[in-house]
Amino acid sequence: MMTPSKINFADKFSKLPDEDYSMRIVAKMNNYEFKIVKFKGEFVWHSHTDTDETFIILKGKMLMHLRDKIVELTDGEMIVIPKGVEHKPASEEGYEVLLIEPEGVHNTGNAESKMTINKPEWI
Amino acid sequence: MMTPSKINFADKFSKLPDEDYSMRIVAKMNNYEFKIVKFKGEFVWHSHTDTDETFIILKGKMLMHLRDKIVELTDGEMIVIPKGVEHKPASEEGYEVLLIEPEGVHNTGNAESKMTINKPEWI
Repeated sequence: MMTPSKINFADKFSKLPDEDYSMRIVAKMNNYEFKIVKFKGEFVWHSHTDTDETFIILKGKMLMHLRDKIVELTDGEMIVIPKGVEHKPASEEGYEVLLIEPEGVHNTGNAESKMTINKPEWI
Repeated sequence: MMTPSKINFADKFSKLPDEDYSMRIVAKMNNYEFKIVKFKGEFVWHSHTDTDETFIILKGKMLMHLRDKIVELTDGEMIVIPKGVEHKPASEEGYEVLLIEPEGVHNTGNAESKMTINKPEWI
């Protein structure tokens, strides 16, 4: 039987490449993946047809744009984006988040973009 | 279409009853629940037959006892306990965690105990 180990977020983020947008898988629970994401800038509007998606903010500030409002999120806050709901994360100063969603979900959902990552790597 | 709101962990924890062990649901993603848990003391040995279970530590220190080792976890760390793996969380000073698992999972798994919570409430 596999014996589990802990994941330290700061340690994982310190290994990310120095880019405005990077994403890596750090853990798996059943068929769900935990991904760390570092982002600065403006993402693309998109939605996920088949699944909800969870963002837990670990550092920095995220402006989660929705069609009817903007939700400002900081360290110690989370949001669940229900399936089908259009959203666009953005951040001037940058953020670090933990993203939780089923394996195989595309980061840009229904929107193809230069930001699309088809198969995130583990770190 | 439901429009999502953010969840602030400190705000949610401030509303928990002042007990050594309390647990409330704060969010749902598909059929998974996010629960905040405050705990001090020694839990019961148990495992979950059908599902993995994720602990994200938000405050304090957790000693996750496994049959072959003890994993010490603090703020900014997480662990996924695979299904079937026996575990016993414990903490002298107390901890606050975010627990993620499918709805309907019993907190004490295969072990009935005075700590068993059959149907956690929302907060």
